[in-house]
Amino acid sequence: VIRTPDGVAIGVDVGGTKILGLALDHEQKILARALVSTPHPAAPDGGVALAGSIAELVGELDDLVGAGAPVGIGLPGLVRDGSTLVFAPNLQSAQGADFASLLAGPLGGRPVTASNDADFAVIAEHRAGAGRGHDDVVMITLGTGIGGGIVVGGALVRGGGFAGEVGHMVLDVNGPPCPCGARGCWERFASGSGLGRIAREAALAGRLTALVALLGGDPEAVRGEDVTAAAAVGDPESLLILEEVGWWLARGIANLVCVLDPTCVVLGGGMAEAADLLLVPAQHHLGGLLEAPTRRPAVTLVGARFGADAGAVGAAIAARELM
Amino acid sequence: VIRTPDGVAIGVDVGGTKILGLALDHEQKILARALVSTPHPAAPDGGVALAGSIAELVGELDDLVGAGAPVGIGLPGLVRDGSTLVFAPNLQSAQGADFASLLAGPLGGRPVTASNDADFAVIAEHRAGAGRGHDDVVMITLGTGIGGGIVVGGALVRGGGFAGEVGHMVLDVNGPPCPCGARGCWERFASGSGLGRIAREAALAGRLTALVALLGGDPEAVRGEDVTAAAAVGDPESLLILEEVGWWLARGIANLVCVLDPTCVVLGGGMAEAADLLLVPAQHHLGGLLEAPTRRPAVTLVGARFGADAGAVGAAIAARELM
Repeated sequence: VIRTPDGVAIGVDVGGTKILGLALDHEQKILARALVSTPHPAAPDGGVALAGSIAELVGELDDLVGAGAPVGIGLPGLVRDGSTLVFAPNLQSAQGADFASLLAGPLGGRPVTASNDADFAVIAEHRAGAGRGHDDVVMITLGTGIGGGIVVGGALVRGGGFAGEVGHMVLDVNGPPCPCGARGCWERFASGSGLGRIAREAALAGRLTALVALLGGDPEAVRGEDVTAAAAVGDPESLLILEEVGWWLARGIANLVCVLDPTCVVLGGGMAEAADLLLVPAQHHLGGLLEAPTRRPAVTLVGARFGADAGAVGAAIAARELM
Repeated sequence: VIRTPDGVAIGVDVGGTKILGLALDHEQKILARALVSTPHPAAPDGGVALAGSIAELVGELDDLVGAGAPVGIGLPGLVRDGSTLVFAPNLQSAQGADFASLLAGPLGGRPVTASNDADFAVIAEHRAGAGRGHDDVVMITLGTGIGGGIVVGGALVRGGGFAGEVGHMVLDVNGPPCPCGARGCWERFASGSGLGRIAREAALAGRLTALVALLGGDPEAVRGEDVTAAAAVGDPESLLILEEVGWWLARGIANLVCVLDPTCVVLGGGMAEAADLLLVPAQHHLGGLLEAPTRRPAVTLVGARFGADAGAVGAAIAARELM
């Protein structure tokens, strides 16, 4: 039996298609990495299949670093009591699962903690990434929607278990409808799907001419990724769209600053290339949207350090902290 | 010399016209109360006149309960480092004042702490009022505008010093302009001035007929207080206006719930009568505005316990806690 050295922790990040596992040493250095597919059983199974895949992944990491390290599990949904996935629109088969119970046997009784993946991402960035040194950090994860994680006074904000769902702040009560039932949620504007929608509307209005020509002339064919790629090589019309989306990003961040006044906002998530292009316009617009800008501490907007690893890195850090 | 008994603390709440002082015992029972006018020197004086008035008020309370109790000071503005009033649009003569320094001599070196008045109000409600027993409490103070104070995990959220300015969350980017420079801030809709504006727009559109007739036929003469008074005696058209303002109140609270997911939201401030009438419609609308309402802990909306005393009560509690 290989004994796990002190300070090693395992972080697991469950996504819609893959599950990433990382073993970290006490300095957050990645010692080992493993990946399995996310099981999608045809019928709800109370999380049994998912727990099995997580146990398999942890077993692979155990073989590499020694058995017994504490495990943190980031889940794409709303998690209660550090264990139960109470609401997960994109992982419905595992809804209701209590992972501490399901994994107690397979993982030999070691400490297991679960939380929302964005919550763990902000833990990673606050403890060891782009938000290091700040007491109050908001992390915004841009993907199809907008997720978020919040650290106040060095501690994760969980509320009743559902804090950080910042993408559903309403910024425009008369805006486009959101699947959540409201209108004008932040993620209708500043996410990957928001970028795509704003770009298609611009194309239909006769803008983005070079990009539309490149895509064969159909304005409806414009996707957010196309705009990001065209902007990255300097297309002025695509840069204007990102400028517009950058304003929406800044407007939502300004709302969060009204509430929490963090000194650092970290931008991450799957839309990393777009996030890089949005940082400068968003920081520029943010200055003009805050009250008393000259009398308050600066709000620094920075790109995430850990990229796609953030959820797993934060899960490992949280698991170690709970020991 | 009367010696202050253990656990006594003094809270001071500086308003635009009056300064309220309270001496509290260790069970938050009010032992003594004093009031002076707020000085408004013609020119900025670095807070010297205000500090003098606060010292006078504390002296009166000392005479009643004994000298030496710690002092907390609630200020109507943005306060940094527990002492300096860095931004106060309605108290500009004292802007920049460092109250710990100004009061060190006059108050004989006893502990002095200052913060935003809404921050102290939420401390009062969380520790000893309507939010007691909840780890996460958001307090909304309805007045001319909307102020706020936030407790997360039992601790006040200060951020860079400017947290809780929830009235300037934007809910309608195309909405009416706000003096802050943005459009569609929450306080354009759900505050005293928001109620007045919505009521006048309704009156000009031919609604609120009974109230307009009562006021002599001029729709422009309708004020928020008139609508509140008419609703309190059952005027159905005025109740509809409060129902509408209650929706806006709920919409802003729903945004805060997305971010912080508090289990308790306390409604207070100077608009107390309207707040009572808004509680039921706001709670009703809130249920329909939250994601996954059946899967999350309930968000309880309650009226404040301490009313106009909340700022001073919280200031005293905070001063005692810092000893």
